[in-house]
Amino acid sequence: MTDITPFINELTALLGERGLIREPDAMARYVSDWAGDTLGMPLAVARPGNTAEVAEVVKCCYAQGVAMTPQGGHSGLVAGALPAANGQELVISLERLNNVRAIDPVNFTITVDAGCILENVKLAAFDHDCDFPLSLGAQGSCQIGGNIATNAGGLNVLRYGMMRELVLGLEVVLPDGRVWESLNALHKDNRGYDLQQLFLGSEGTLGIVTGAVLKLSPRPNQNRTALLGMPSVQAVTDLYGLARRDCCDLLTAFELIPRRCIELAIEATPELRDPLDSVYPWYVLMEVAATGPVDLGSMLEQLLETGMERELVLDGALASSDTQAAQLWQFRESMLEGQRRRGEHLRTDISVPISAIPDFVRQASEVVMAASPECEIIAYGHVGDGNLHFNILPPMAMANSDKKAHLHDLEEQLFDVLDAFHGSISAEHGIGRTKQAPYLSRLSPIERELVSGVKALFDPKGLMNPGRILPAEK
Amino acid sequence: MTDITPFINELTALLGERGLIREPDAMARYVSDWAGDTLGMPLAVARPGNTAEVAEVVKCCYAQGVAMTPQGGHSGLVAGALPAANGQELVISLERLNNVRAIDPVNFTITVDAGCILENVKLAAFDHDCDFPLSLGAQGSCQIGGNIATNAGGLNVLRYGMMRELVLGLEVVLPDGRVWESLNALHKDNRGYDLQQLFLGSEGTLGIVTGAVLKLSPRPNQNRTALLGMPSVQAVTDLYGLARRDCCDLLTAFELIPRRCIELAIEATPELRDPLDSVYPWYVLMEVAATGPVDLGSMLEQLLETGMERELVLDGALASSDTQAAQLWQFRESMLEGQRRRGEHLRTDISVPISAIPDFVRQASEVVMAASPECEIIAYGHVGDGNLHFNILPPMAMANSDKKAHLHDLEEQLFDVLDAFHGSISAEHGIGRTKQAPYLSRLSPIERELVSGVKALFDPKGLMNPGRILPAEK
Repeated sequence: MTDITPFINELTALLGERGLIREPDAMARYVSDWAGDTLGMPLAVARPGNTAEVAEVVKCCYAQGVAMTPQGGHSGLVAGALPAANGQELVISLERLNNVRAIDPVNFTITVDAGCILENVKLAAFDHDCDFPLSLGAQGSCQIGGNIATNAGGLNVLRYGMMRELVLGLEVVLPDGRVWESLNALHKDNRGYDLQQLFLGSEGTLGIVTGAVLKLSPRPNQNRTALLGMPSVQAVTDLYGLARRDCCDLLTAFELIPRRCIELAIEATPELRDPLDSVYPWYVLMEVAATGPVDLGSMLEQLLETGMERELVLDGALASSDTQAAQLWQFRESMLEGQRRRGEHLRTDISVPISAIPDFVRQASEVVMAASPECEIIAYGHVGDGNLHFNILPPMAMANSDKKAHLHDLEEQLFDVLDAFHGSISAEHGIGRTKQAPYLSRLSPIERELVSGVKALFDPKGLMNPGRILPAEK
Repeated sequence: MTDITPFINELTALLGERGLIREPDAMARYVSDWAGDTLGMPLAVARPGNTAEVAEVVKCCYAQGVAMTPQGGHSGLVAGALPAANGQELVISLERLNNVRAIDPVNFTITVDAGCILENVKLAAFDHDCDFPLSLGAQGSCQIGGNIATNAGGLNVLRYGMMRELVLGLEVVLPDGRVWESLNALHKDNRGYDLQQLFLGSEGTLGIVTGAVLKLSPRPNQNRTALLGMPSVQAVTDLYGLARRDCCDLLTAFELIPRRCIELAIEATPELRDPLDSVYPWYVLMEVAATGPVDLGSMLEQLLETGMERELVLDGALASSDTQAAQLWQFRESMLEGQRRRGEHLRTDISVPISAIPDFVRQASEVVMAASPECEIIAYGHVGDGNLHFNILPPMAMANSDKKAHLHDLEEQLFDVLDAFHGSISAEHGIGRTKQAPYLSRLSPIERELVSGVKALFDPKGLMNPGRILPAEK
């Protein structure tokens, strides 16, 4: 498109002045995300107010051959929802589609616009003694549409599943602007191919999700949190199997935390005190929650006792109040801030079978230490999901200009170790742009053919979030 | 293919004599299923012994343009895995692929051949203090591959989900004979489009599943069963919400049973005694199960007490032993036998939002009774899934020759009521052939286009289980 004026005029007529942003200052908010990734400036930012407007905007783009970047709450970690550097993509922000459409506490479902902020959906569910159990650090800003596009995970996956297991129905604007309405509120439905599964985790490359029916759970009315000192990663995975059984599958979180993270947390939040009397190489932060008459306190005490008898657990602190529980969780949050303060570092988001976690951590650590002895390794994660954030902090003394290449090199070596464990290079963050190279290099020819075929089937013109997951078609 | 001799010779060379069946008597076992559906005779029955042999058989068919019918344990209910009447389809039975390949109790996974019988997979899990929680009436004969192809449900979906939520990885022979190996044992994996979701519920129309990694749970070491007398369907759905909360989501089953089913059960199994002192219009059969230190007995007693206080529950029997629990479950099983004895009747497998169950049952009953006052309605099902088997027994006096058309007419009227509740005409059985007409008539043009596109992408020659879900391409 050489002259974009008619296209912009058409969008302005459709959306009104507040529905279209063109000034660079006002657009700045839409070009970077939480992780600090920034690629470039969009052609414009469209802010449709409802599904019909999204459909009209997409129809315009389809007719004119304009590429689209659907955008949620800017908390992605793989640059999947940022406009390309070429200035040719129209950002379509879902932020104005933010209504809870309906809630049915008897059916345990809520129907929402895709632009609803996760936290608001949780609050709406609370009002009916229900919970939408997806729990993420970014829940105060991320949007349901982004959670769907990335098949979001988070802290409570071991109990409630990923976003895929929490979605019953979808409303999607397809790349040509037609609306596929499939807002079923059915817990069971086996009518042929389940197309909505394709949109879950497709990172906005097959269409724009505008609405969804989500599955709710009863809201737990009690929970207990414990922080345990552990001798080894092996003890952590052993304890996990015990905890699944002895806690009746009421576990909502079971986090592996290395000693270094406790120190980073205290660095970031100096009022935190070392949580246990001694120092341990590894820690487990765990939580159980229930909705009915169960004595969670004695359940946890009993688990700890068994764990200590079997020499899996060395020491533990059980929170006896919500305040104490919040203090224990503060370590999990502050350790992230502690990492951020160290500046540029390698973030990974990988998964292996749970049984492989101990060997993987050992082998990967050996490889990284051999390649770069002055690095610091921070391996923490969600044990029940086999999901580790095996992160690497470069030496403090290293020049900033050298860090990127060095970390990239370490990531490649780390991923080679991961391949031997049949692991995933992206457990929950997705592929976007930043994981595309290692993703593509591991894709078999059959997979490449099928994945490309799915993309071409839904988006034959290649206009919907091009260059994410797969390279843009030339 | 006018002369099939070279094709048969090629298969015989590949599979040996025991791997290929051609005699009509020996083939008879492969042409009908549990429900009594029979369509015709196949070209032959191939019984490959491993994935490589499946791939070779499929390659032959692809080269020669021979249609294929993948087949599991003959317990389907929509004639999806039976060879067509035209004698042109090769049945590919998975029954010889029946090995448990690996079990990893720390990762809570088991890797199996697709021909493994569900019961055997459960037994293999028990040996490691785990459970594969899919529970079906047909579990002694149905195969994992069929469970995957139909996205099987069953009794415990409210706790553990459908088959879709229990599958982590797949191995599939594609319609051209290439093997797509994606046997990941990862609980979290967000690498691009999740292709395996398409095979789940695709009823063998996109490829042949030959292996799978399944998710295990800890094996419950205690459970409690209760049978409750209820005043109304509304009381049943109200109690369900209470039970989800007061039983800490430890519910494994919550079945709605009408009075007529208790009578049918006693007709079929005369040693059964009426389970409660009085007669109630509706019953709930429920079960809770746990792996740890929870007092399930007092949990259930407390629920009953609350239910009675709120006048939701009128009476109840709590099993105090495994034998008593088995007796209560006997009603659920015998009532199916009681229905079978009534000969030809309308079986449906529908779903609505849980909150709509009372109104749907009332309206649908009114419509059926108005159209055919001498019919008997038997509406039972899985409340937590919104899944009802709203079945209709024709009048005893009706001539057999009239029944089929009459029941078909009633089914259409029933489905019209269902449409008003945004329900599904197939909650767990799938589409196959027998539900194809009502499925297609409800498919929107967009859906028809996308579903056909997916079929064409995976199976461009249209040879894989043609005519199931979608009509065969001409």
